[in-house]
Amino acid sequence: MISVCFIGFGNVNFNLCNALYENSEVSVIQIYNRNNIVLHQSLDDIALTTELSQILPADVYIIGVPDNAIATVSESLPFQDRLVVHTSGGVDMNTLSAANRRGVLYPLQTFSQGKVLDLKKVPVCIEAEEETDFQVLHQLGSILSENVVNINSTERAKLHLAAVFVNNFVNYLYGVSETILNEHNLDFELLKPLIYETAAKIENMSPSAAQTGPAKRKDTKTIEKHLHLLSESPYKTIYEILNNAIQDSYGKKL
Amino acid sequence: MISVCFIGFGNVNFNLCNALYENSEVSVIQIYNRNNIVLHQSLDDIALTTELSQILPADVYIIGVPDNAIATVSESLPFQDRLVVHTSGGVDMNTLSAANRRGVLYPLQTFSQGKVLDLKKVPVCIEAEEETDFQVLHQLGSILSENVVNINSTERAKLHLAAVFVNNFVNYLYGVSETILNEHNLDFELLKPLIYETAAKIENMSPSAAQTGPAKRKDTKTIEKHLHLLSESPYKTIYEILNNAIQDSYGKKL
Ligand SMILES: NC(=O)c1ccc[n+]([C@@H]2O[C@H](COP(=O)([O-])OP(=O)(O)OC[C@H]3O[C@@H](n4cnc5c(N)ncnc54)[C@H](OP(=O)(O)O)[C@@H]3O)[C@@H](O)[C@H]2O)c1
Ligand SMILES: NC(=O)c1ccc[n+]([C@@H]2O[C@H](COP(=O)([O-])OP(=O)(O)OC[C@H]3O[C@@H](n4cnc5c(N)ncnc54)[C@H](OP(=O)(O)O)[C@@H]3O)[C@@H](O)[C@H]2O)c1
Repeated sequence: MISVCFIGFGNVNFNLCNALYENSEVSVIQIYNRNNIVLHQSLDDIALTTELSQILPADVYIIGVPDNAIATVSESLPFQDRLVVHTSGGVDMNTLSAANRRGVLYPLQTFSQGKVLDLKKVPVCIEAEEETDFQVLHQLGSILSENVVNINSTERAKLHLAAVFVNNFVNYLYGVSETILNEHNLDFELLKPLIYETAAKIENMSPSAAQTGPAKRKDTKTIEKHLHLLSESPYKTIYEILNNAIQDSYGKKL
Repeated sequence: MISVCFIGFGNVNFNLCNALYENSEVSVIQIYNRNNIVLHQSLDDIALTTELSQILPADVYIIGVPDNAIATVSESLPFQDRLVVHTSGGVDMNTLSAANRRGVLYPLQTFSQGKVLDLKKVPVCIEAEEETDFQVLHQLGSILSENVVNINSTERAKLHLAAVFVNNFVNYLYGVSETILNEHNLDFELLKPLIYETAAKIENMSPSAAQTGPAKRKDTKTIEKHLHLLSESPYKTIYEILNNAIQDSYGKKL
């Protein structure tokens, strides 16, 4: 039985808690949050505290607070030599206070408020200073997911960078197209099957094999038409940069 | 009963044919392709020809050839005053030869070789010069999909531009992240649940509400780290442009 205490209770810890709570190998003994929180009924027998001094002994403390608060929060913990992990893709393990044994448990997924995701296929990237702690995180990770991976802080930084491209930047492009459609009174709903299939397509095909469109075809007529449509738009530069990048990349390969 | 003849048999017409073939309101009477093709067994009783002069009379001719061949192919048809449509997002209806009655039947989706997609939720954008032809295309569209929309060539150009952002450009970003991971011997498979959920998330949330990440947070420490990782990379400019665009866009909204 692994006892777990959550420190901070945002989107990530809420999801981890939901996935671990009913498992017989885990005991979620407490949630610490600096401010009062109200738990959903299904979790409402978990002990809550807003006082650092009231934090209970546990096998693992999972810090799920914004990246820039991880160091301070870990330094404020009033105990030593326990296993304390953060859940961030972009933060080095050594950002955690050295007063405790350090580790990372990073679920490579995007979480939204109040939405409980199935984590079974989500890579859970783990790292620990000590082998015994690594084993504990591996056990915890295996309860969460079928895909537990050993990723050190250097590798995790690169994973996180790549994740920014496929999550933050891709979502931004969804927003760009929504704005373009709205400006012309066209409904963004029209693009949703395409958005979905664009993601589904690479399940069994590499992105380079899946690439299509005017840039890849070097279809200058269509590209000119698009640039004309964008002539007054703040998105023209983005179009040009991505269009040229695709042209260069497939130019080289031909 | 609507009789249909396909002109060209690439990814789009293959998919349309599959969706229409078994429907009792449609008769797929022939496929014309300039070169010989071999049909899958399930379609192999459809008449084939490689001769323009052998094309049979039909209610609708669906031209599914590359955008830059639509004009020439439509001009080469050896008949007049019949309904001839193309399937392109980026091409004006009037690109078709005026010798026949013109229309468009554009399925707003990305098709891959040999993959049969369910078109039920796919917007089928239709346009026609004449009201009676419009009715025929509406009937055909309704057999393909629950979502038939009246979109003229001007609107379609904008839809197609927006589709380039969420399909071609997004897919390119998938490829960028694959390259970044491969360079560091990390497996692109790790990102697939994230890619999938990024698309799924906007099903019930606007992209601007779904936006997260270092750029939106103006987390300069992480952004510096990413730019450092990309210092030798051709992708640095793309990172900077998209990162700055997100910062500007959320800067304004705050
Ligand atoms: N969201 C994702 O998709 C995602 C995915 C993978 C990893 N991560 C990582 O997981 C961690 C948590 O992210 P999240 O999205 O769950 O965060 P979040 O939803 O923003 O939750 C923030 C939590 O941290 C607390 N908090 C905020 N500032 C604090 C401070 N200065 N001191 C103490 N507590 C503070 C908040 O408490 P109050 O209620 O008192 O404000 C809240 O409980 C981050 O390291 C993030 O990089 C996030
Ligand atoms: N692919 C998509 O995801 C998608 C989505 C929506 C709309 N569209 C539009 O649908 C249309 C067809 O696209 P597609 O992807 O199905 O094309 P495709 O798979 O590339 O198919 C091309 C077809 O056109 C024929 N063809 C090529 N050049 C020709 C020429 N010069 N003269 C006569 N026939 C020629 C080919 O015949 P051979 O076998 O003889 O080469 C083949 O049958 C385009 O207008 C495209 O913009 C495509």
